[in-house]
Amino acid sequence: MTLPKDIRTSLDVEELPKKWYNLAADLPGRLKPPLNPKTMEPVRPDELSSLFCDKIIKQEMSTERFINIPGEVRDNLVHLCRPSVLQRAYRLEKHLKTPAKIYFKREDMSPLGSHKGNTAIAQAYYNAEAGIHTLTTETGAGQWGTALAASCNLFDIKATVFMVRGSYDHKPTRKIVTELYGGTIYPSPSVHTEYGRKYLKEHPDSIGSLGIAITEACELAMKDPGTCYALGSVLNHVMLHQTVIGLELKEQMKKAEIEPDVMIGCVGGGSNFAGFSFPMIAEKIKGNTECEFLAVESKAAPSITGGEYRYDLGDTGGFTPMLMMHTVGHDYVPPSVHAGGLRYHGMSPLVSAAVEQGYVNAVAYDQLETFEAGETFAKTEGIIPAPESNHAIKAAIDEAIRCRQTGEEKSIIFCLSGHGMLDLNGYSEYLDGSMKSSS
Amino acid sequence: MTLPKDIRTSLDVEELPKKWYNLAADLPGRLKPPLNPKTMEPVRPDELSSLFCDKIIKQEMSTERFINIPGEVRDNLVHLCRPSVLQRAYRLEKHLKTPAKIYFKREDMSPLGSHKGNTAIAQAYYNAEAGIHTLTTETGAGQWGTALAASCNLFDIKATVFMVRGSYDHKPTRKIVTELYGGTIYPSPSVHTEYGRKYLKEHPDSIGSLGIAITEACELAMKDPGTCYALGSVLNHVMLHQTVIGLELKEQMKKAEIEPDVMIGCVGGGSNFAGFSFPMIAEKIKGNTECEFLAVESKAAPSITGGEYRYDLGDTGGFTPMLMMHTVGHDYVPPSVHAGGLRYHGMSPLVSAAVEQGYVNAVAYDQLETFEAGETFAKTEGIIPAPESNHAIKAAIDEAIRCRQTGEEKSIIFCLSGHGMLDLNGYSEYLDGSMKSSS
Repeated sequence: MTLPKDIRTSLDVEELPKKWYNLAADLPGRLKPPLNPKTMEPVRPDELSSLFCDKIIKQEMSTERFINIPGEVRDNLVHLCRPSVLQRAYRLEKHLKTPAKIYFKREDMSPLGSHKGNTAIAQAYYNAEAGIHTLTTETGAGQWGTALAASCNLFDIKATVFMVRGSYDHKPTRKIVTELYGGTIYPSPSVHTEYGRKYLKEHPDSIGSLGIAITEACELAMKDPGTCYALGSVLNHVMLHQTVIGLELKEQMKKAEIEPDVMIGCVGGGSNFAGFSFPMIAEKIKGNTECEFLAVESKAAPSITGGEYRYDLGDTGGFTPMLMMHTVGHDYVPPSVHAGGLRYHGMSPLVSAAVEQGYVNAVAYDQLETFEAGETFAKTEGIIPAPESNHAIKAAIDEAIRCRQTGEEKSIIFCLSGHGMLDLNGYSEYLDGSMKSSS
Repeated sequence: MTLPKDIRTSLDVEELPKKWYNLAADLPGRLKPPLNPKTMEPVRPDELSSLFCDKIIKQEMSTERFINIPGEVRDNLVHLCRPSVLQRAYRLEKHLKTPAKIYFKREDMSPLGSHKGNTAIAQAYYNAEAGIHTLTTETGAGQWGTALAASCNLFDIKATVFMVRGSYDHKPTRKIVTELYGGTIYPSPSVHTEYGRKYLKEHPDSIGSLGIAITEACELAMKDPGTCYALGSVLNHVMLHQTVIGLELKEQMKKAEIEPDVMIGCVGGGSNFAGFSFPMIAEKIKGNTECEFLAVESKAAPSITGGEYRYDLGDTGGFTPMLMMHTVGHDYVPPSVHAGGLRYHGMSPLVSAAVEQGYVNAVAYDQLETFEAGETFAKTEGIIPAPESNHAIKAAIDEAIRCRQTGEEKSIIFCLSGHGMLDLNGYSEYLDGSMKSSS
């Protein structure tokens, strides 16, 4: 074989991290707390208890550096193919004629299709343990909804998923997968909540938004003490659960003797980027690395590059606390032609703070150029990426091309957050030329 | 963690086999040779040269025990995630309350979606090396067509795929994937060949069959010296290329100290079963194991359990040699309601001979019971299998249930030949109750 030695770096099952890493412990300065939208006072833990179980609330507010991963969660992460592989995109490098080395962390190999299982498993576990019988949630592109349905099934609780109607219509296979895992899925806005019915009356042709779907999911959770709400991104505990990605990556980089120069992840609410980068950002804070961190967003919902850093609601209806974050506004609805994912109006407060403090840079791309990058990746590496992941790939390709021009032998690492097997309609539009710019 | 130690057995990149194993070297008695359908004499190598390049023909006729895998083929197999993982279906065992241990070899983790890449890569390599500019092929469920398109793209040659019309209409995403990998795909019978046009005239509403699609692909290959034909199953060289599965498995069983009692694979043309089992059948022939081998077919095309062992054509139009095999007849068309894959009328001559000599048993299932097994697997293991693979899962579940009744702690190993992400319409019909028996 002529492949480089670092073509693939694996970890043993026993090397799965035993603790999650919490960036809140190390980020200089205090995080601005979530506020009660009615009083504009910091939210007390008990005010969140209609939405979340106690252990989740505790994690959400924690500033402990490391938090133990329960054994049963680790067992199920192993079932979902963790630790995940770090692979070198050797054929892509050759295609780009770049002196840079390109690596990618493979969250696409989870049977749930993306990184979303990392937190879905943990949230289902804690809620099942707390005696909750149903979790409600929203989903945009659908990765989170299917992951939560599968995870709830593993812990014998129910999942009710509100899927943004535009995506629901565009991606019919998400419904099949959710139902195969035993979940219930409704297009949002729906007739199953008061808010949905009211919204539909005013906007009967609405294609929906994540903000609306979150409101619907929260409404059901608030009405029934046996029902809690699960969020797939944005909140601190979600970022925490995702850090298995970056903790594994650190071990793998050590093993393969990789010194990263640029680490790249796509951002919608920020969860795969956070999980992938936070353990290395901790090293940056300590002065142990010069690595740059790049968050790649969609021009269809550019909260960092096109929004403001301020307090905003997490949902459209106002059921969630106010979060200090980058936002394009909680009533924002992305263009209906958008198929590229990453459609949330706000950004994780932890990611936002890391941006504000200068640890993370951001860039935004239009869906057309990201699908083009995805096609290049599929043709060279054989893997069809999720549209979200295509944003990270596009940025990695651009960086590798810059290296070709400057001759720099940088090590570029990106997070392949998921596969695109359930997002093929977008690729079809791209291939037949009917896809439009969504920026 | 409370998981058993053998939950996952991996091999390093360097442990990828360096040679393929050829069962023709060890099967007692001589294989009956392919015959020229016009003369009924054994086919001479040069008679195959309009369809295949020389190195493929040599492998097809070889009785050498081991054949070197070229370095460039091994490189690309690594890119397609080989060696593949051997996983224990621990949650499925618990669900079935069986004392048996159930393991599965994960061909579903290839980015090409199934085991088909193992031979697609090799065939694309040899043809590219021979200066061929285009490979034509047939595909039924679509796994082979997408794998060949991706593999041809890796070696810079073209792929033209004739997909059985019934599947083409039922699985629109296969077209998108084939085109994303740079391939061309036509529903068969098509207007792109003489045979297709003639067949369509007589049967304008034909849903097609693999036999018809093979005829169309062969016709294009025979008309142009720069075009060759690639078959995804049945022939000896295809079985040979698939033995990487079973050779890896042998190493993994040694590593994890697994003594297999039953090895189970689904069979259409026989390629994943052959690749998975032949290296262990060699041990059985030598008297080194008591392991049983079970080939699981579809009741919609039951060549072993419902057909005859005789010479038959490989295609409908008569372009291929006559093969000595189990067959339901080369003009057989599976029921139009069939969504379970495994629709080929004949069985690999090597698999057929292994059946006749008593090394392999066979069983057939209806699609309804196999989709039910697939649902159970998805809910317990989180993985949505290809409909073909569901046949092997159904047989493994039945064996595990027998073990529950007898108390036997058997080690059951099956081949998970592919994932079902592009076969969700079948699952949808199963879930909504509209799926019909296809036997």
